[in-house]
Amino acid sequence: MAPPIATDIQSTIDTEIATFSGGLSVNGVAARRSMAPKMAGGIAAHASSDMFKGPGRGKPKAKRWDHKLNEESKSRKPSSLKGAITYLKNPGVINLGGGLPSSQYFPIEYIDVKVLSALHFTEQETKEPGVVKRIGKYDIEEEKGIYDLHVGLNYGQATGSAQMLRFITEHTEIIHNPPYQDWQCCMNVGSTSSLDLAYRMFVARGECILTEEYTFSTAAETVRPMGVQCVGVKMDEEGLLPSDLDRILSNWDPSAHKNAPKPWLLYTVPSGQNPTGATQSHKRRKEIYLTAQKHDLYILEDEPYFFLQMQPYTGPNAPDVPPPASHEAFIKALVPSLLSMDVDGRVMRLDSFSKVIAPGLRVGWITASEQIIERFVRHSEVCTQNPSGPSQLILFKLLEETWGHSGYLDWLISIRLEYTKRRDNICYACEKYLPQEVASWTPPMAGMFHWIKIDWQRHPSKESKSMPDTEDEIFHASIDRGALISKGSWFRAETDNPGNDMFFRTTFAAAPADKVQEAIKRFGEALRAVFHLEKATNGPGH
Amino acid sequence: MAPPIATDIQSTIDTEIATFSGGLSVNGVAARRSMAPKMAGGIAAHASSDMFKGPGRGKPKAKRWDHKLNEESKSRKPSSLKGAITYLKNPGVINLGGGLPSSQYFPIEYIDVKVLSALHFTEQETKEPGVVKRIGKYDIEEEKGIYDLHVGLNYGQATGSAQMLRFITEHTEIIHNPPYQDWQCCMNVGSTSSLDLAYRMFVARGECILTEEYTFSTAAETVRPMGVQCVGVKMDEEGLLPSDLDRILSNWDPSAHKNAPKPWLLYTVPSGQNPTGATQSHKRRKEIYLTAQKHDLYILEDEPYFFLQMQPYTGPNAPDVPPPASHEAFIKALVPSLLSMDVDGRVMRLDSFSKVIAPGLRVGWITASEQIIERFVRHSEVCTQNPSGPSQLILFKLLEETWGHSGYLDWLISIRLEYTKRRDNICYACEKYLPQEVASWTPPMAGMFHWIKIDWQRHPSKESKSMPDTEDEIFHASIDRGALISKGSWFRAETDNPGNDMFFRTTFAAAPADKVQEAIKRFGEALRAVFHLEKATNGPGH
Repeated sequence: MAPPIATDIQSTIDTEIATFSGGLSVNGVAARRSMAPKMAGGIAAHASSDMFKGPGRGKPKAKRWDHKLNEESKSRKPSSLKGAITYLKNPGVINLGGGLPSSQYFPIEYIDVKVLSALHFTEQETKEPGVVKRIGKYDIEEEKGIYDLHVGLNYGQATGSAQMLRFITEHTEIIHNPPYQDWQCCMNVGSTSSLDLAYRMFVARGECILTEEYTFSTAAETVRPMGVQCVGVKMDEEGLLPSDLDRILSNWDPSAHKNAPKPWLLYTVPSGQNPTGATQSHKRRKEIYLTAQKHDLYILEDEPYFFLQMQPYTGPNAPDVPPPASHEAFIKALVPSLLSMDVDGRVMRLDSFSKVIAPGLRVGWITASEQIIERFVRHSEVCTQNPSGPSQLILFKLLEETWGHSGYLDWLISIRLEYTKRRDNICYACEKYLPQEVASWTPPMAGMFHWIKIDWQRHPSKESKSMPDTEDEIFHASIDRGALISKGSWFRAETDNPGNDMFFRTTFAAAPADKVQEAIKRFGEALRAVFHLEKATNGPGH
Repeated sequence: MAPPIATDIQSTIDTEIATFSGGLSVNGVAARRSMAPKMAGGIAAHASSDMFKGPGRGKPKAKRWDHKLNEESKSRKPSSLKGAITYLKNPGVINLGGGLPSSQYFPIEYIDVKVLSALHFTEQETKEPGVVKRIGKYDIEEEKGIYDLHVGLNYGQATGSAQMLRFITEHTEIIHNPPYQDWQCCMNVGSTSSLDLAYRMFVARGECILTEEYTFSTAAETVRPMGVQCVGVKMDEEGLLPSDLDRILSNWDPSAHKNAPKPWLLYTVPSGQNPTGATQSHKRRKEIYLTAQKHDLYILEDEPYFFLQMQPYTGPNAPDVPPPASHEAFIKALVPSLLSMDVDGRVMRLDSFSKVIAPGLRVGWITASEQIIERFVRHSEVCTQNPSGPSQLILFKLLEETWGHSGYLDWLISIRLEYTKRRDNICYACEKYLPQEVASWTPPMAGMFHWIKIDWQRHPSKESKSMPDTEDEIFHASIDRGALISKGSWFRAETDNPGNDMFFRTTFAAAPADKVQEAIKRFGEALRAVFHLEKATNGPGH
């Protein structure tokens, strides 16, 4: 049970949860597009979500964040060269201004990509009924398509191509329908890069940010060299505790944090959190958002595992919960995002294709208010520039031309069911092979990770052996038996504070089911050996 | 003529130029590969140029740069998670440690890419004799190839894939043969991103860097928000003047630069410099390098236009110089890079595929000493991660499997001849249409840009009109006549110092030859109008 939060926050939650409702429907997309101007997606064409969004009538405008932007971000100026492009609107003007190479010299004539066709979502089935999509060099000119190599292989805009930005904007509206008017999306080269850019907008050397007590180690390793420390917020099985967030902020003492001012940037992974696998409930998210409002926090909502939310866990001896019966039922079954309750525009949400399509594409996107997106774009222009053209073209052929929004939702449902199977498999293995005298866990509701708590105080030498030493002993005992799992301590937000508990992180995303079973069995044997427990009766040693 | 440089520098130059020699030959690649271990290019496989380079016997080790790295870079720590991967070397270990998705869920079966086959290097010829290369999902397992979707669509290393890093390392050795032992390459998502990363390794708020007096505006816009000012070094038709570089550093007065310490980072574009089109001669580069040694400068050598070095300009009435007769002749015709004379390891060279293959791939690479590459990789890991898998796969199919090093050199020769034609075309147009009473230029030897000097003091209202106002008048007079060209002032390194001269930058890279002729004609008409000159006799108005 989560400790109670401040009553001024609690009071508004129940009614707000009840009023959540969806936005754009899949069927609404075609209607909206039919009324929009023709896609103008030429070389490095300007694009903005505003071209593709609903009007957002009745929604408030986002708050301004001038007081939160750091010196670096505030001082970014638009480029003179990019400004000059506006003169190209004059008809007949010949452009000798910009240094774009001629597509005549791109040594690629076409790319064919064979993708899974909708509703045939297993690898084997696809080999036959898959669809081959051609990306030609001059498809636009030859009226064979609206996005081609001539555009995709040249320089692009930091927002990403208009063609893909449209799909992403519509998808964001279908799933999240942000409750303020001036939200926009901007594509990126992956969420890790966007985190680097976001930190460089918001924090400065000597400051602190707030994160979960155990946090995605890369996110912390991104910000620490900037001279910024992570302050860990306590967690339970639903993730970050708003009461602890409130406590930290209400009692902030700079002298206890090397004179850092009270932090105001929160980094959180609400669904299938890395490493704990915890998923914030709808109520928990509301509480976090209201606490953020109370202390004027800005939130980085990092959600790579959002669509790895799974079916409820029923255990090995009960029937599975039937899959979502419709797209509407599927969307309703997802815990709503912080973005979906962000009336202030105080959330930058980071979405990723890495876990649901493929990480090697290096394409994701952020959603935030117009002011924040504009600053983000200014930095991207002089840094990552734009996501890979071939990656964007492949996504376009798959998501836009083959699946559409409807087929993409079908795909996401199938991913949900696949991860449910994988999660069930690792939980069954843990129930079967781990000594429950020392190991405990909560079945994850989302993501790739299973987080196992170890009652290290039951170690026979606990009087003479520190927790880190015992953790290391278990880690190596497991490797010696052929199972590599991650130490929980690697994920501590506060590296100099080991906490009181011991955890190990396992992932069920990659290895085949039988290998996962075998690895968990080996880990169980390692635990029995370290803690001097009886051998398992239900799983023979090797 | 360049002013004389300090005699202690001049003395060593002539002998050093004479001793320059090439490294690995194209034919030497196959022999070296045949003796190397089998390529181990699985998912996120570790890769380093050391696996692919020559032994570098007799070469010195690079100097250490600890005294130049800033607080951010020095504090970067290796990732615990990545460190754990070493345990996977133990045979039979099952990995539940890392959060990689299973390739089973990548919804792409194969990618076919049709590329120009070697020696058929025009766009039209390619349509027939081009080669289709298939990138399958499990080519490695099925022994159809050494790089496939199963690897390329998953997470990768910050160095880029082993498969592409090998080609890039060999290419770098063939062309530059760095004269110190511990050089390495690291791929990136484009040179602009690498500049951002490099600046964040080397400079801090309140400091200055050195650049050409007119510089690539994006490079300056990347560093200025970091609180770093650019100090412009004077140039002539061969680019940056070592004598002026020496003068600035020998007489550095912090009080004249907001108390900034003496700068020690030089950003330079040696070939076809943007915006001036200037190319540093071999002798000039030696002088710059020796000046860098004298003042212990570190150099960022940004070389997107290196292979856009052209044939000598002979003018409209003289025969063309015959193209290079062999690969050796071609390589010898290139002005050697700063990297090729870098005995200290004080150069980070930035190479790009953007101008010679396609910018939309967002793939380039840097070359520097092992120490610098290691710090660069640490940052990339928590930021851009790795270049797009599809982009790397396409490059691999083109460069490695279709062309090889030999075919790539053929391609680069053909690009050289194409840009020679384009350069000749714009120079002929300028000779024909620009009023030489006020416009003067040097035919560029490399790159995409033609830089035109305007004798603004001949303006009829020069007593009452400032240089910026006259520049603006010419800019708009040209747009009004249908030609967009760039103001030289946009490229000033020191934004508050307009200099004494006026320039305009044109590019001959993109527009077709007849459009370039027409645009230059229009610009000529604009100049005649602004300066109240007679109409051209050799080109009618419109």
